[in-house]
Amino acid sequence: MQTFGYKLLGQDGNARLGEIQTPRGVIRTPAFMPVGTVGTVKALYPEQVKGAGADILLGNTYHLMLRPGAERIARLGGLHKFMRWDGPILTDSGGFQVMSLATIRKITEEGAQFQSHIDGSRHMLTPERSIEIQCLLGSDIQMQFDECIELPAERSEVERAMALSLRWAERSKRAFEAQVLAGGATRGQALFAIVQGGVDSELRQRSARALVEMDFPGYAVGGLAVGEGHEAMVATLEETLPHLPAEKPRYLMGVGTPLDLIESVRRGIDMFDCVMPTRNGRHGTAFTWDGRVNLHNARHAEDLAPLDPESTCPAARDYSRAYLHHLVKSGEYLGAMILSWVNTVFYQDLMAAMRKAIAEGRFDAWAEATKARLERKV
Amino acid sequence: MQTFGYKLLGQDGNARLGEIQTPRGVIRTPAFMPVGTVGTVKALYPEQVKGAGADILLGNTYHLMLRPGAERIARLGGLHKFMRWDGPILTDSGGFQVMSLATIRKITEEGAQFQSHIDGSRHMLTPERSIEIQCLLGSDIQMQFDECIELPAERSEVERAMALSLRWAERSKRAFEAQVLAGGATRGQALFAIVQGGVDSELRQRSARALVEMDFPGYAVGGLAVGEGHEAMVATLEETLPHLPAEKPRYLMGVGTPLDLIESVRRGIDMFDCVMPTRNGRHGTAFTWDGRVNLHNARHAEDLAPLDPESTCPAARDYSRAYLHHLVKSGEYLGAMILSWVNTVFYQDLMAAMRKAIAEGRFDAWAEATKARLERKV
Repeated sequence: MQTFGYKLLGQDGNARLGEIQTPRGVIRTPAFMPVGTVGTVKALYPEQVKGAGADILLGNTYHLMLRPGAERIARLGGLHKFMRWDGPILTDSGGFQVMSLATIRKITEEGAQFQSHIDGSRHMLTPERSIEIQCLLGSDIQMQFDECIELPAERSEVERAMALSLRWAERSKRAFEAQVLAGGATRGQALFAIVQGGVDSELRQRSARALVEMDFPGYAVGGLAVGEGHEAMVATLEETLPHLPAEKPRYLMGVGTPLDLIESVRRGIDMFDCVMPTRNGRHGTAFTWDGRVNLHNARHAEDLAPLDPESTCPAARDYSRAYLHHLVKSGEYLGAMILSWVNTVFYQDLMAAMRKAIAEGRFDAWAEATKARLERKV
Repeated sequence: MQTFGYKLLGQDGNARLGEIQTPRGVIRTPAFMPVGTVGTVKALYPEQVKGAGADILLGNTYHLMLRPGAERIARLGGLHKFMRWDGPILTDSGGFQVMSLATIRKITEEGAQFQSHIDGSRHMLTPERSIEIQCLLGSDIQMQFDECIELPAERSEVERAMALSLRWAERSKRAFEAQVLAGGATRGQALFAIVQGGVDSELRQRSARALVEMDFPGYAVGGLAVGEGHEAMVATLEETLPHLPAEKPRYLMGVGTPLDLIESVRRGIDMFDCVMPTRNGRHGTAFTWDGRVNLHNARHAEDLAPLDPESTCPAARDYSRAYLHHLVKSGEYLGAMILSWVNTVFYQDLMAAMRKAIAEGRFDAWAEATKARLERKV
């Protein structure tokens, strides 16, 4: 049985080229993980996600525990078999969705009480239960249970949640190790810690140091992309990443725009996940190498040009903008299907381009040229 | 330039095996036409429709004239290019949708006045305008403009609409021939007439005879599947079809269930269209060789069996019923995508099986065995 590992293959400034090894396959980093919230990357066939070049995808503990339920997925053979994805899967811990989706919640030392956003049923998530669920799902990379707060917030509140998340990190780690001993997880699976602390440099450093002390196989930066803005996000990364070990992968949770990804890779981030490509696709917006295209706009109504001739997605080259405009205006499934596919491929193409630029030692030049194109108004 | 034609290749009882020749390719009959209402077979990529084995699909004049507009589609190069379908397309005349979808309508000798169900805008459809629109779309098989009424209805009302539809057939034919002369259509395109007359045998015969007298390249039976029931529909076919020429294709509009298709082919119908496969797919119901399967049903929640191991659609074999149940319950795009695909393939597989049974001279035996399976409760 192969164990979990990270290999740093090259560096260009702080940008890192690497590989995460898992028993289910290698993850080329920097990597973007398409989000398969409830066991499907919305509006894509799994073959399209694989074909886009994604090595790993993300599943949401919160959604899956509510429907169809973690025990049910375990009885059905685990999440990979359930959703027909044989590559690695990372699951979050549910902490973020308890904050953003659930209602009537109570956070105690023990964990988080909440009501399902689907049917109002009551549930409790603790570090131990979160890890148990992630093991039932069969997740390859699991996340510690954390408390994620909205920004801006009082420093005392940020500090309290950060400190609680540290204690939950310790409990998550013990729970995961107990699972390994009991056969609920293997050494090929990994548990990542989550650095918290808002946009406060000192809190972020305390969180990072305490977690590194506990020795996790990977570290996430959590609690960003919750309203602080691009500049504050990048500044927080600059202050946090130097305190994380170079020999472990670093994952920026829930981020972001193409610009966010470029600037975060430049500062040393290895992994991302975000609903932007699929959510924007469902809402009629395409990501292209010349920036975002809103297909609702009437100027596309008689435009026979394809969406993006440079895309590796056939749909970005085969369909006219006029047709996509019509599909989007008509609320047709195919519009959401095509645009979600195009965007998922764009994000993978973007990561591939970044990996190539790092390997060739020209990341900064590539980044500046690409940003100029992405921000161009077309 | 190849002209439009029909070749009867074989017969088993009244069931007919044939081929319709068009410049865009051969249509193997009996044929089922997937419905691409607004320029997309809902929730399917065009490659999936083609891969399912469909030789031809249907577009709706009413929907396309309202959005994106026939003149716009013509400027963009026609419907085939617009929706990336290079096979034949049949368009209806808009008559049925004026009755079923539009509001505040007024039928006069001239045509039908109505308000768009999308934005309330006022429109007028006449035989001449319907043909003009179908030519702008570039439809390979066009339909005469007709008045379609709901059943049950007074005999006098059925007769009035039938007689009006005959006069509109004549005007449609003149309009089509004028288009051919003016270069708006070619001899490779065809205009079909529509037999009306409700479930009244005498009216149907009068309609059929009058239309045959006008000499169309194909004849449709319209105004069925509007509430009269399977038995009355089949009886009407038995009374109508003997009055249509054997050397022309016969198209039963808007029909139907697998049982409807089998019994109609048995009586000599060559072409069908219906939204059932895709609409049912979007609503969580699958067609299989062992009958319909409602994926909402909780008994599928932990069923690892595939939907239909006999299907030629990979999705019917690859995904578990448990996963499809979860997708349907969660309202996920992928559920509608997979089930619409599976159903579209099932309908094509059903037609292929009928063509084979006719060719082998065992249609009745095949039909009885198949009906017994399709009606089996599973």
